[in-house]
Amino acid sequence: MGQRIALYPASFDALTNGHLDIIRRAAALFDKVIVAVARNMEKQPLFSVAERLQMLQELTADLPNVEIADYDGLTIEFAKKIGAQFIIRGLRFVSDFEYELQLALMNRELDGNIETIFMVPSVKYSFLSSRIVKEVASLGGDVSEFVPPLIEKRLREKLKPNK
Amino acid sequence: MGQRIALYPASFDALTNGHLDIIRRAAALFDKVIVAVARNMEKQPLFSVAERLQMLQELTADLPNVEIADYDGLTIEFAKKIGAQFIIRGLRFVSDFEYELQLALMNRELDGNIETIFMVPSVKYSFLSSRIVKEVASLGGDVSEFVPPLIEKRLREKLKPNK
Amino acid sequence: MGQRIALYPASFDALTNGHLDIIRRAAALFDKVIVAVARNMEKQPLFSVAERLQMLQELTADLPNVEIADYDGLTIEFAKKIGAQFIIRGLRFVSDFEYELQLALMNRELDGNIETIFMVPSVKYSFLSSRIVKEVASLGGDVSEFVPPLIEKRLREKLKPNK
Amino acid sequence: MGQRIALYPASFDALTNGHLDIIRRAAALFDKVIVAVARNMEKQPLFSVAERLQMLQELTADLPNVEIADYDGLTIEFAKKIGAQFIIRGLRFVSDFEYELQLALMNRELDGNIETIFMVPSVKYSFLSSRIVKEVASLGGDVSEFVPPLIEKRLREKLKPNK
Amino acid sequence: MGQRIALYPASFDALTNGHLDIIRRAAALFDKVIVAVARNMEKQPLFSVAERLQMLQELTADLPNVEIADYDGLTIEFAKKIGAQFIIRGLRFVSDFEYELQLALMNRELDGNIETIFMVPSVKYSFLSSRIVKEVASLGGDVSEFVPPLIEKRLREKLKPNK
Amino acid sequence: MGQRIALYPASFDALTNGHLDIIRRAAALFDKVIVAVARNMEKQPLFSVAERLQMLQELTADLPNVEIADYDGLTIEFAKKIGAQFIIRGLRFVSDFEYELQLALMNRELDGNIETIFMVPSVKYSFLSSRIVKEVASLGGDVSEFVPPLIEKRLREKLKPNK
Repeated sequence: MGQRIALYPASFDALTNGHLDIIRRAAALFDKVIVAVARNMEKQPLFSVAERLQMLQELTADLPNVEIADYDGLTIEFAKKIGAQFIIRGLRFVSDFEYELQLALMNRELDGNIETIFMVPSVKYSFLSSRIVKEVASLGGDVSEFVPPLIEKRLREKLKPNK
Repeated sequence: MGQRIALYPASFDALTNGHLDIIRRAAALFDKVIVAVARNMEKQPLFSVAERLQMLQELTADLPNVEIADYDGLTIEFAKKIGAQFIIRGLRFVSDFEYELQLALMNRELDGNIETIFMVPSVKYSFLSSRIVKEVASLGGDVSEFVPPLIEKRLREKLKPNK
Repeated sequence: MGQRIALYPASFDALTNGHLDIIRRAAALFDKVIVAVARNMEKQPLFSVAERLQMLQELTADLPNVEIADYDGLTIEFAKKIGAQFIIRGLRFVSDFEYELQLALMNRELDGNIETIFMVPSVKYSFLSSRIVKEVASLGGDVSEFVPPLIEKRLREKLKPNK
Repeated sequence: MGQRIALYPASFDALTNGHLDIIRRAAALFDKVIVAVARNMEKQPLFSVAERLQMLQELTADLPNVEIADYDGLTIEFAKKIGAQFIIRGLRFVSDFEYELQLALMNRELDGNIETIFMVPSVKYSFLSSRIVKEVASLGGDVSEFVPPLIEKRLREKLKPNK
Repeated sequence: MGQRIALYPASFDALTNGHLDIIRRAAALFDKVIVAVARNMEKQPLFSVAERLQMLQELTADLPNVEIADYDGLTIEFAKKIGAQFIIRGLRFVSDFEYELQLALMNRELDGNIETIFMVPSVKYSFLSSRIVKEVASLGGDVSEFVPPLIEKRLREKLKPNK
Repeated sequence: MGQRIALYPASFDALTNGHLDIIRRAAALFDKVIVAVARNMEKQPLFSVAERLQMLQELTADLPNVEIADYDGLTIEFAKKIGAQFIIRGLRFVSDFEYELQLALMNRELDGNIETIFMVPSVKYSFLSSRIVKEVASLGGDVSEFVPPLIEKRLREKLKPNK
């Protein structure tokens, strides 16, 4: 069998320790992992696509088989274009699960050769989401346990807590 | 017993094969089925109410006991006005279920004589929703497996994929 | 259209106010409702099939279009045999929903002409189940709010609380 | 042990009978209950913070150990500031549960000394939410069974049904 | 207000770190916590009631306001008998939640003065259950991360792994 | 990277089209897939382990990188013994998901080097389970749409419908 390439698509606005956990687990399992910022996924992003790409680059610099990319259009089309046979998605909660199942079945209809693979982050990150981290940070909360130091610094620069 | 009339209310923006499946099943079970476009349900519709009504008319032309309507205001008031004893809703996912249960219980409080009846679409449409179909179509994906040919054509006319 | 006949199958061991609520709602909506004791559904029933049939008879005596029956074998085969076009099932909880959805889809594969219809009991019965009622009664609890007086009396006769 | 103080935070836009039920239950269990309007929780509130505070005052006037407040910033910070050891949240549905669990775990990370306590409203209010009540009221429906008379009156003043 | 007494009922067969976590949290919040072994809850227990009581005694010896008890019959009757105003239950998963909600609503019907309070164990114990721990232990797995050392020792004595 | 070996453990009593679908998808993605009958998983199996192994052999004969095995003891220990870095599990429903998540997190605690990977069967098999198939077959229903012809034949031999 040839190289196994996996696409891990998300908005990464902002990247949490849960995302990084999935990236590291995926990097250990596939020959190549393309971590890709979906340009259209987040309606009102906090960070620009360029900022998100740069942060991902820096945070995955120690993982030689991880590449960073961005795309718009259908995830399944991007997967095909880059030669990925897998789409990786993280599962934490039941509410995740139902939407992700719907997406996976839709993507299979669109291209039956690309398989969605679900992975579970470390239990200690199971309550994290980009949305809740941004909410806490915007209200002045300490998010250093939930995101890498780089992201924490950038969140602090972006957000002025409403005291 | 008199005529059994059922109301099937939805935004139908856009109608999927799942909707059509429920309409056909309902038409076989009730004396009359009123398929009604809820004007207020979708905040930013892709199709105008007039367009949705016209598409529904065309797609149900072969079903003699199906009538098309639109309404605003409370669904339960519209059901009463047209003499429907049933409100039909499709169930696919757990997340559907909880919201639909909440609506059904609320509607029962508002009028105890009208009964909400849940039906399940064909399993092959269980992952479909108007939202996911519009998303795929807007990104240039092929939705011909998910909607009737008429809807596919109209979606293509409405949407310019962001290539 | 001809007569609309609905089958409401359950173990009814023991019948709760929630079951009776569904029976009354169904009786108002269909020309005939066959309430049928599934002989195989409950592995270790508290009441014999004969006892359950007799209690159902007594409790539905005022509903002229309700008939009581029992069956073994496939529910869908029994529905076909009695000319029912509908199978009625009550939905209370998410956990109900998933199993019932699975059954409904399986039954549709077995016979596409018989439609499963889900109804919701009154919200005040939404936490009731035969199992929890039997458990409470067996521990000496007062179940008079949860079951009809006849059932309460029979439960008291059957069960000696373990004091 | 000293005084037990509980914070019950919500947007209360609009307060339902379910909220009032939780407030009364909490008042019977804690030495002091601070019912607090979260200023940031509702993006486009129907009632101003001042209006919500005034309605809460009036509706809890008979409960001597209930105080009304408002806050912005993190809920956990406000709890700490007012000396509350508990945060109270109501649970009705599975979809509630997952989000509330996520919040409770996040809050525990932010301050391990404050404990989230979940309470269940009366089953007859289990289908109520501020959102569904506002929706029904805005469409001209009768919400007198779902909210206290004061709230009903204010909703009628605020909302002109779109006939 | 008088003393606040809480009942924490479970089968505790076997006690996990998740149970102990809830006990410690409850001990910090109530004047007295009665941890009670429900004699009837587990059909085929691994440990006798006497063994479970003795292990609970030993594991809570450092918590002066925790008492150990056992009971049969209805939980709500036992709560009343010991003067508890609260029943404490831990919530981890959605499947927990629905059953616990059903029990809480049933108990409220049986005695409206006793309130069920839900608490969440530490996220790192969120996947633990007595059943899964016993299963792993019985297959020879190392459960030292999941249960207190005392319980681990007793499990090893009880169970001979089927090698 | 070396060979990627995946373990797909289940009771396979009886194998459904859903199982076979997961096996085929996995065979396309990994260098080697060990399909293993868990001897202890099913308390009262219909087929002996030897029968299940023989059926699996026959049904996967055309898949050169699939091997059949059986084991008792911990799944994670067997994975380690055969050099598998992955455990594959199929996900269909929310109720599946929660239990599988619990198992995956437990297995990660037991051995952090082996990763559980979730895959979704074809939507047309999403309502299938071994239990429901055996139930239908035992009641004389036609299961030819739900299991491979070999399994259907064996089920018919094993089961005498209770007419």
